[in-house]
Amino acid sequence: MTKERSERTPQVLPGQAHGPAVVITRRAADRLRAGYLWVYRSDAESLIPREGESDVAAGALVTVVDGRGIPLGSGLYSSASQIAVRMVSGVAGLTRAAYLKDVRERMEAALELRRELAPASKENDSCRLVFAEADVLPGVVADRYNDLVILQLLTQGTAQADVRGVLAETLREHFADAVTAIVERPDPKIRELEELEAPSTAPLWSVDGAKLTTVFTINGVRFHYDASSGQKTGAFLDQRRNYAAAARHAKGAALDICTYQGGFALHLAQSCERVTGVDVSRAALEVADRNLELNPGLKAQVDWMEADAFELLREYEATGERFDTIVLDPPAFAKSKRAVEGALRGYKEMNLRAMKMLRPGGTLVTCSCSHHVGREEFVGVVAAAAADAHRRVQVLEVRGAAPDHPEILTLPETGYLKCLICRVDQG
Amino acid sequence: MTKERSERTPQVLPGQAHGPAVVITRRAADRLRAGYLWVYRSDAESLIPREGESDVAAGALVTVVDGRGIPLGSGLYSSASQIAVRMVSGVAGLTRAAYLKDVRERMEAALELRRELAPASKENDSCRLVFAEADVLPGVVADRYNDLVILQLLTQGTAQADVRGVLAETLREHFADAVTAIVERPDPKIRELEELEAPSTAPLWSVDGAKLTTVFTINGVRFHYDASSGQKTGAFLDQRRNYAAAARHAKGAALDICTYQGGFALHLAQSCERVTGVDVSRAALEVADRNLELNPGLKAQVDWMEADAFELLREYEATGERFDTIVLDPPAFAKSKRAVEGALRGYKEMNLRAMKMLRPGGTLVTCSCSHHVGREEFVGVVAAAAADAHRRVQVLEVRGAAPDHPEILTLPETGYLKCLICRVDQG
Repeated sequence: MTKERSERTPQVLPGQAHGPAVVITRRAADRLRAGYLWVYRSDAESLIPREGESDVAAGALVTVVDGRGIPLGSGLYSSASQIAVRMVSGVAGLTRAAYLKDVRERMEAALELRRELAPASKENDSCRLVFAEADVLPGVVADRYNDLVILQLLTQGTAQADVRGVLAETLREHFADAVTAIVERPDPKIRELEELEAPSTAPLWSVDGAKLTTVFTINGVRFHYDASSGQKTGAFLDQRRNYAAAARHAKGAALDICTYQGGFALHLAQSCERVTGVDVSRAALEVADRNLELNPGLKAQVDWMEADAFELLREYEATGERFDTIVLDPPAFAKSKRAVEGALRGYKEMNLRAMKMLRPGGTLVTCSCSHHVGREEFVGVVAAAAADAHRRVQVLEVRGAAPDHPEILTLPETGYLKCLICRVDQG
Repeated sequence: MTKERSERTPQVLPGQAHGPAVVITRRAADRLRAGYLWVYRSDAESLIPREGESDVAAGALVTVVDGRGIPLGSGLYSSASQIAVRMVSGVAGLTRAAYLKDVRERMEAALELRRELAPASKENDSCRLVFAEADVLPGVVADRYNDLVILQLLTQGTAQADVRGVLAETLREHFADAVTAIVERPDPKIRELEELEAPSTAPLWSVDGAKLTTVFTINGVRFHYDASSGQKTGAFLDQRRNYAAAARHAKGAALDICTYQGGFALHLAQSCERVTGVDVSRAALEVADRNLELNPGLKAQVDWMEADAFELLREYEATGERFDTIVLDPPAFAKSKRAVEGALRGYKEMNLRAMKMLRPGGTLVTCSCSHHVGREEFVGVVAAAAADAHRRVQVLEVRGAAPDHPEILTLPETGYLKCLICRVDQG
């Protein structure tokens, strides 16, 4: 395919030695011109290796051209992901040196933006520092948890020594006085998808004797963080402001479905009498309980329950359990476009059952973090649940991710987090 | 039509004296069953007068039935509006006394909810007390501006002496110690649409010597309010929290497009160096300037400019004006479904020009209050503007109306206010 296509498109950077290129479909070219930033594998018509080479290397910087050979810019090529190219520049034939310069500048801009949006304080010492495409750094995510900075390199194009070096150096320059260690942490699933090797377990930088565990604070609530554990932290930083908003509207007896390590539950405990945090993972609940111990001043009696969310909601409905506040924050039901229909059914069932077991005037906080379920679609499902449950639902707040997780307008996938705060009454 | 249809559907409340009824299409019946609350005129197949009467009276309580005569509940009939019936109850054949009892209870519930959501304080003494369908009180809107309560009766069904009496009494019971007058205020356009007579200009209730003007405060910013003027107040209460959020992200030189009486401009002036508030209405700007005088502590130099938004943006683009913050809060471009396409063009042009005249890293606060333009649609238009302007736009906050303006999930029209807070960079 490569050869044939390359013969049909001799005008690609004609007459000069060129780096590797990817020829894309017209549909994909139109999308890029409208500001989209990804090229799916099915839209990559042919791969043109660098002159004198036989393949496009995994993670290579490539020039993206349309079928007529017109260059659209440069991107990072992945040999494994469904996203074949992630655009990094409108400049065609971007050199490695220019790319690394961009990486440094964008990293600095991202850190500057977080200083504006989420300045570290005693009540809030943690935030997302870099959020991939939203900071024009596809494949790069960094978070600060109090005195630890965690870097994730999530694509073949960024999990490379030179990129890691630039990022580690920039982070060190900014945080050497404020944190004790900068650590690279793998995301096992994504590394499998991208066929990446595990990074070194040694910190990228640390002060002498630095630990890889810490206690961090958001909205005045304290959580454990362990950078050496494989698990994701249970306080999802994207929900930071939604945690606080939920606490403002919560009351009485509360149920937190898919509490994981207690993110919502511990916030609800600021304003409720009783909170039950439910999760299917015992390991997560053990961390949740340790997090609870970190916050002795909470108002509510908090209990943890190991259970499947759907089974428990069915059982509670049968036994006539009632709550004043329910939080639904399930993991992404739709991991792919194909899974959307099943995901919508799952959201509907979960919301319907929750609405039925809320006392009149109760508070429902309902979230979806599925990239493949749009905002309108999610609202539609919750509306359908309201109609079937014969409940009148007033939406008090329509919320998204915290501002340190910006959304890129031209890449709707970055607006993945939906959170509705509702008051539920008899219909 | 009425007679023919009534013969074809003899099973409507058979064998008993019945009140007036409206037979609706299957499509409309399906919608009501899914929680929708309106019946459009085009879906009202026939009107069945009360026994012994020749017409369904304007504003009558009617039973709504599907084509098979199955009752769906009761609603308020309008002889003039495009919305022929607004549902008020799932009970068929609702009596006037039962309706008035519902009105009182729902009014009390609405006021109780506002005590939770927007308790009066020195910094915030104003909010929407009742929001029509969102409080199951179609055709009824009430706002509090400091020591004045303003009631609006917006449909034939609610602009009636008995409904007015119950509402006025409930408001008086709740606010007699907190406000100085309760005033009914007409909305001229809606009254024309509904063919309503102007209400009495005398207050529904007042203390001796009460004035119909006041100064009210939201987010610590002070505004004039004049209940005797025909104009809508310039501080839109639905934007209350968005005003505060905009101020958090604003900086430098700011432009407030369609400032009206200075709502956003005076909030921006808390954090900017210089604010220019633009509106096409000189009368609005005169109030804006009086509002400015109420707030001597503001940081910015504030100027008002009488101009058409589109013309000014074109002119500024030509002369190379640059700003650090721009707010776009135009009146609803799409007043009807037919006007949507033109409205989307208007939003796109306005956003595109604003993006181009923002300095790198500038803040764009862009709003739409068109009922007919959905959230996803608005985001799409701003994204298209970003692509055409070659700007990289990070959405920092996706916002809606303040919680005292709830949205009803099953009536998407109630989720009309969209507000995006963005950071705009070179693409």
